[in-house]
Amino acid sequence: MTISSFHPTPRTLMGPGPSDVSPRVLSALGRPTIGHLDPEFIGMMDEVKELLQYAFQTKNEFTIAVSAPGSAGMETCFVNLVEAGETVIVCVNGVFGMRMVENVERLGATAIVVSDEWGKPVDPKKVTQAFIDHPEAKFLAFVHAETSTGALSDAKTLCQIAQQHDALTIVDAVTSLGGVELRVDDWGIDAIYAGSQKCLSCVPGISPVSFGPRAIEKLNNRSSKIPSWFLDQTLVMGYWSGKGKRSYHHTAPVNSLYALHESLLMLQNEGLENAWARHKTQHEALKAGLKDLGIEFIVDEAHRLPQLNTVLIPDGVDDAAVRNTLLQEFNLEIGAGLGVFAGKAWRIGLMGYAARSENVALCLAALKSVLK
Amino acid sequence: MTISSFHPTPRTLMGPGPSDVSPRVLSALGRPTIGHLDPEFIGMMDEVKELLQYAFQTKNEFTIAVSAPGSAGMETCFVNLVEAGETVIVCVNGVFGMRMVENVERLGATAIVVSDEWGKPVDPKKVTQAFIDHPEAKFLAFVHAETSTGALSDAKTLCQIAQQHDALTIVDAVTSLGGVELRVDDWGIDAIYAGSQKCLSCVPGISPVSFGPRAIEKLNNRSSKIPSWFLDQTLVMGYWSGKGKRSYHHTAPVNSLYALHESLLMLQNEGLENAWARHKTQHEALKAGLKDLGIEFIVDEAHRLPQLNTVLIPDGVDDAAVRNTLLQEFNLEIGAGLGVFAGKAWRIGLMGYAARSENVALCLAALKSVLK
Repeated sequence: MTISSFHPTPRTLMGPGPSDVSPRVLSALGRPTIGHLDPEFIGMMDEVKELLQYAFQTKNEFTIAVSAPGSAGMETCFVNLVEAGETVIVCVNGVFGMRMVENVERLGATAIVVSDEWGKPVDPKKVTQAFIDHPEAKFLAFVHAETSTGALSDAKTLCQIAQQHDALTIVDAVTSLGGVELRVDDWGIDAIYAGSQKCLSCVPGISPVSFGPRAIEKLNNRSSKIPSWFLDQTLVMGYWSGKGKRSYHHTAPVNSLYALHESLLMLQNEGLENAWARHKTQHEALKAGLKDLGIEFIVDEAHRLPQLNTVLIPDGVDDAAVRNTLLQEFNLEIGAGLGVFAGKAWRIGLMGYAARSENVALCLAALKSVLK
Repeated sequence: MTISSFHPTPRTLMGPGPSDVSPRVLSALGRPTIGHLDPEFIGMMDEVKELLQYAFQTKNEFTIAVSAPGSAGMETCFVNLVEAGETVIVCVNGVFGMRMVENVERLGATAIVVSDEWGKPVDPKKVTQAFIDHPEAKFLAFVHAETSTGALSDAKTLCQIAQQHDALTIVDAVTSLGGVELRVDDWGIDAIYAGSQKCLSCVPGISPVSFGPRAIEKLNNRSSKIPSWFLDQTLVMGYWSGKGKRSYHHTAPVNSLYALHESLLMLQNEGLENAWARHKTQHEALKAGLKDLGIEFIVDEAHRLPQLNTVLIPDGVDDAAVRNTLLQEFNLEIGAGLGVFAGKAWRIGLMGYAARSENVALCLAALKSVLK
């Protein structure tokens, strides 16, 4: 087989991620690689930190980008904070809550699972009960915006419950950051991770993470060594620390950080509240159009993510055939269902740069054409 | 502080990595992002695997790119293969051997350290003795090309010793892949990891990894669960498996893989032996010029890496000032010493796309100008 240079067909990305990456971000990505210890690069990292603090609405000094995808961001939070033998209350209402349980158990810790139906938000009453039943729990872990179902949970209330029980919170904001209201400091979130390739519309492969003072205190007072060297944030801190000499840990993904810088800058220029409002507006337009096509949402209106629309595949429609036609004829990607929704749902993303009128118009017109 | 788009000053990268990235690779990197489950992307991943098999000189079916830097590639090998309570002979002749020890110990396994002086290769006699003293050792781990010292160890002989003692080999090829002779199958290497940003001259952030049949057998017969979810290669296998349906594990760093594809294609087009010869030729030119400047190598000629030239900083020369002048006046980056060589050595890289006559000429002229 002779291999030649790869030229992907440009697509419109309206699945659960990666989302459309803007030309501005792709242009930043392709700029000349410089050294990861170059003063210019270090200055840019300081700006990335400041821009991430804005996006997360936090003053946390330890606000960085893990040099790996969102699933490594998740593992970063668990492996640094949770020790073998400790108890974590984990809310499961989709795939990513289940993954949190995996993380906890692989560390030799105990996961107390609070289950909610897929497509529903986490029920705060069940979480309160779990703390009453398990006073030994030191952590509450939950997914803010479940990418597998399109449901939004009430992070503010869940964090209040954790605080009442003196537990630290670990929050998955992979799909929420930049798409819906998220206030790390106001809500008292202790540790949070996100993805680059959802509502930030940056390329996949890096994961914003922030630890608050209580998380840092827990990290600094561990009784055991962090099992992972690569994700040991006590080492990474020296690399992402403020001005002055940086200690070498690993070689940062230089070009991906150019792209993250640009995507965060676009978010700052737009304004966080404006970005949230834009996602909402485009979601309303999509919703109206889907209703005309007779397509129904899975999640109740009150807990629906504007950036990830999970809808039932109409009866008699061939899931894979429709998605394949959308891709081949319209260069439009929408997402398949995941887990219990496989074959039953589509996930239509309106994330970041993809939350635009032309995308909504294309998606509705293409669906109408294919389903007619 | 008002933040604006980041436009790095183009540099010539002749440190220990990242190395110069060619315009072809940067162009591939900036192509439109498509979905990680898009058939076009999956086809490209199959090509990446085939190109990596060529670069590693292996038929190993499990030959992939870990979605994180080389240090995660290292951890991938250890966390999947080594279990708590097992014994690993680790050769330490620089920073990266020490990091291997960290990996082993954080897994609850025992590291038997075979030490050699920094700048020297691993001594095979000591390794044989370590196996005699520790018949319980199941693994031999060593660094093929020590990035911190510029020394090349005899991987072929070390693998033979391991095989004689029925031990698996874990080999760090971060700096060797593409720069010097490396033959995974002929030498019987069981598990190997490399970096994207050394002699492949791809952007940093991904790590080629290959497991041979004995490593796969060990992985499939573990008695304990793999401590890391993100690096669990039994899950990743389903994602990188051949044709047909891929199981979702994480979102691949799509654009970085475009770049890796292009850089591996350039290597295949040039031919592996030709690339090794080019590194040697440019090294000889650099060596001759450095001799004229009175600059001496640290590593004996027989074990010197052509792609990473570690030289003594001449007496009375201000390390940081010289490197700073090279960077600010000539846009030329050379590397500082690491570990015991900090402040005593420079590391001049001739890696991948950086191993060109114009780079050698610039480096020698700039050094001459600064040191005069």
